[in-house]
Amino acid sequence: MADQKKMVEDITAMDVDFSKWYTDVVKKAELADYSSVKGCMVIRPYGYAIWENIQKDLDARFKELGHENVYMPMFIPEGLLQKEKDHVEGFAPECAWVTFGGESQLTERLAIRPTSETLFCEHYKNIIHSYRDLPKLYNQWCNVVRWEKTTRPFLRTSEFLWQEGHTMHATAEEARAETRRMHQCYEDFYRETLAIPPVVGRKTEKEKFAGAEETYTIEAMMHNGVALQGGTSHYFGDGFSRAFDITFTDKDNQLKHPFQTSWGVSTRMIGALIMIHGDDNGLVLPPKVAPIQVAIIPIAMHKPGVLEKASELFDALKKQFRVKLDDSDNSPGWKFSEYEMKGVPLRLEIGPKDIEKNQCVLVRRDNREKRFVSLDNLAEEIENALAAVHHALYEKAQQNLIEKTFTAHNYEEFLDIAANHPGFIRAMWCGDTECEEKLKDVTGGVKSRCIPFQEEHISDVCVCCGKPAKHMVIWGRQY
Amino acid sequence: MADQKKMVEDITAMDVDFSKWYTDVVKKAELADYSSVKGCMVIRPYGYAIWENIQKDLDARFKELGHENVYMPMFIPEGLLQKEKDHVEGFAPECAWVTFGGESQLTERLAIRPTSETLFCEHYKNIIHSYRDLPKLYNQWCNVVRWEKTTRPFLRTSEFLWQEGHTMHATAEEARAETRRMHQCYEDFYRETLAIPPVVGRKTEKEKFAGAEETYTIEAMMHNGVALQGGTSHYFGDGFSRAFDITFTDKDNQLKHPFQTSWGVSTRMIGALIMIHGDDNGLVLPPKVAPIQVAIIPIAMHKPGVLEKASELFDALKKQFRVKLDDSDNSPGWKFSEYEMKGVPLRLEIGPKDIEKNQCVLVRRDNREKRFVSLDNLAEEIENALAAVHHALYEKAQQNLIEKTFTAHNYEEFLDIAANHPGFIRAMWCGDTECEEKLKDVTGGVKSRCIPFQEEHISDVCVCCGKPAKHMVIWGRQY
Repeated sequence: MADQKKMVEDITAMDVDFSKWYTDVVKKAELADYSSVKGCMVIRPYGYAIWENIQKDLDARFKELGHENVYMPMFIPEGLLQKEKDHVEGFAPECAWVTFGGESQLTERLAIRPTSETLFCEHYKNIIHSYRDLPKLYNQWCNVVRWEKTTRPFLRTSEFLWQEGHTMHATAEEARAETRRMHQCYEDFYRETLAIPPVVGRKTEKEKFAGAEETYTIEAMMHNGVALQGGTSHYFGDGFSRAFDITFTDKDNQLKHPFQTSWGVSTRMIGALIMIHGDDNGLVLPPKVAPIQVAIIPIAMHKPGVLEKASELFDALKKQFRVKLDDSDNSPGWKFSEYEMKGVPLRLEIGPKDIEKNQCVLVRRDNREKRFVSLDNLAEEIENALAAVHHALYEKAQQNLIEKTFTAHNYEEFLDIAANHPGFIRAMWCGDTECEEKLKDVTGGVKSRCIPFQEEHISDVCVCCGKPAKHMVIWGRQY
Repeated sequence: MADQKKMVEDITAMDVDFSKWYTDVVKKAELADYSSVKGCMVIRPYGYAIWENIQKDLDARFKELGHENVYMPMFIPEGLLQKEKDHVEGFAPECAWVTFGGESQLTERLAIRPTSETLFCEHYKNIIHSYRDLPKLYNQWCNVVRWEKTTRPFLRTSEFLWQEGHTMHATAEEARAETRRMHQCYEDFYRETLAIPPVVGRKTEKEKFAGAEETYTIEAMMHNGVALQGGTSHYFGDGFSRAFDITFTDKDNQLKHPFQTSWGVSTRMIGALIMIHGDDNGLVLPPKVAPIQVAIIPIAMHKPGVLEKASELFDALKKQFRVKLDDSDNSPGWKFSEYEMKGVPLRLEIGPKDIEKNQCVLVRRDNREKRFVSLDNLAEEIENALAAVHHALYEKAQQNLIEKTFTAHNYEEFLDIAANHPGFIRAMWCGDTECEEKLKDVTGGVKSRCIPFQEEHISDVCVCCGKPAKHMVIWGRQY
């Protein structure tokens, strides 16, 4: 237990310094490492394995809905980026620019993609000619670059990994439905896979994606009351289509511009997993994305039969679960804290006495509940325990979301909550960008997160200016 | 049949213009498209699906051998790239350089990774301290950039996708064994998955990877007698370790430098697939990587029961194979040539008469062999047919390799073969770089491909200078 204690003491407590706790977990759970490249991180095997599980799950969902994967160039010539006015204004200031190829200066600068609407549009112009070519449901998994001043592993890095879906449709209605469908896909993924309850809604005019007519968002509440934008789905109308002169001959023989969507989620979801489910002992991973779902720890490993039994369980379980057998010569106590730190959902202990009784010990990471389980129906017990962990993580996150959601009926309440109660603020809004800006300024950073799909009526007037309210908005500080 | 004929006529014949045939296939099989980004391509859904099958197969092989995936930054600061002298000399001339981040000029230029030895070394320095930390068996799937003057889809593009393995070991012997083991892994993959017989050996001093002590290579022979370097595995000794000051405390308590390997294959393998297996009707794909293994074409689709039966077969087969049912209103003839163009290994035709007889027609893409097959053991028949296609493709490629491998006993024979017989040339070599350069100059591009693992004794003297020969070398023109 000495080892275990030591290890746990190495992490800063959440309540002492949440930010330090976060970076401690990232480092000690071996999720990521810093590099000499400013603002970029190394994603280590354990962190990357989480990303692989996320990819596999999402990719299957996308393909089930009819999407196909493609790969576009990583470079966007400056002229191409400038074709859609709002888009370039939003992204040009945070682009990394390539100006030399080998020894030669380029005649036109190349941006490294911050997002790929422009590249997809250029390609779509080549391949879309008739209504028969629609819809086009494309997605790509890739790296993108947004030059950031202050960075934090997973949450905000100059380069990050993501997927970006880009689709084209014959009608506005169909494109709007796709925007909503993919937003729903993300919502399901957050609930079913990440065990995170999302707040869902649409962005205000001010917070929309550069070039979009409508942006739907997934907002998640971290343990410390700060919000994280966890995924967005955009409806573009035919704005890019017109800018890129993409046309198709419709069934009625008329030449028309198609309607477009894009949607993306990124490695920042790993940051959300850490900050929503983690605790003072380290990472806590939802079973669906945990690289190791069950860590088998042999007890009194030197005793005859223990290692054999542990290996036998490993072989039986690995067909169904992601299992690791740790037969290293570290102490059981060291191993306990190691897999706690790494957020492994279940620990399975097996020692001589357990073998005698045809049982093992199953310990849950989330609540440390310890149970003796018969080896006869072990797989079923583990399956149930993993489902229980997922459910408990979701419930705990839901509880945190409820506790950290406040209602402001007027300006004073808004300021008081913003100053003293970290979390979401529900408040009425007149619809003016000025009020959004004022609230952000006076609170030092509280912004509109979304207009939720399910608005409630809190009062008749805007919390800021007192004019008639148009919407209920969820506000909050963000990562 | 009119449609079919038209479609086939659209491709330039191989013998007329091999280069044009290649780009026709790339475009008409919808593998890739050009973009306005110089030297970069769009990988379209059908091409990317081949890459996904390649990735899945290789990734499983790597993991089976104990490798873990990671992700390194895409940027390499100029100073970091310069740490290993030979390496920077080899790669700096073909780097794309980022000089601006947003509006600000960077104080140090960033290369976009042409390969990531330097980044891995920087990270390894952070995480390797003891012999217990070794070996480190890392791999990453990513995009890399090498600024190319003349480009061709898949074969040579400024940006391409690849995997790069980077490993560290306590001893030189272990690292050498890993270099060879991964080369063997590629060799197996070429034979078992791509149905390509590789020529295997090591590179001469002149052709080695920049910074490597030894480079093992996979060389493949295209249909037109031009060679393609299809994968390499490098042994670095402790050169980078010393340059990056990576040390570990060994069991004997001594501080030592670890020994390093790297190995990679890329999307250029798709180019090899096209040029080795393709024919005048388009692409021919080996079943293991074909996005569609069986195309089901209903005949007389309007007749009652046909579409139902075709759907029933589709549902039964899709659990085991990658199947597509084409129930579009295009003619069967159009569909036949479409799936021929796309290189689908098997076509399954089913019409009213077949249904009556409880059979279907199975047509092989590679030799157009047509057989009636009972529906009772259809899955087994398809499995056997796919295996037969794989085998036949391999045999055909092997035959091409044999026919296009020539032996030169002296200088005149070498020049004659180089001028008149496209293919590999087996010839003795003294070991001097001067002779390699001379042979390349006088033949206009015939270079040493490799010193094969199984050398034969052709003569006692170098084919170029007449001095005593050290090795048999395989020579050839390359893509």
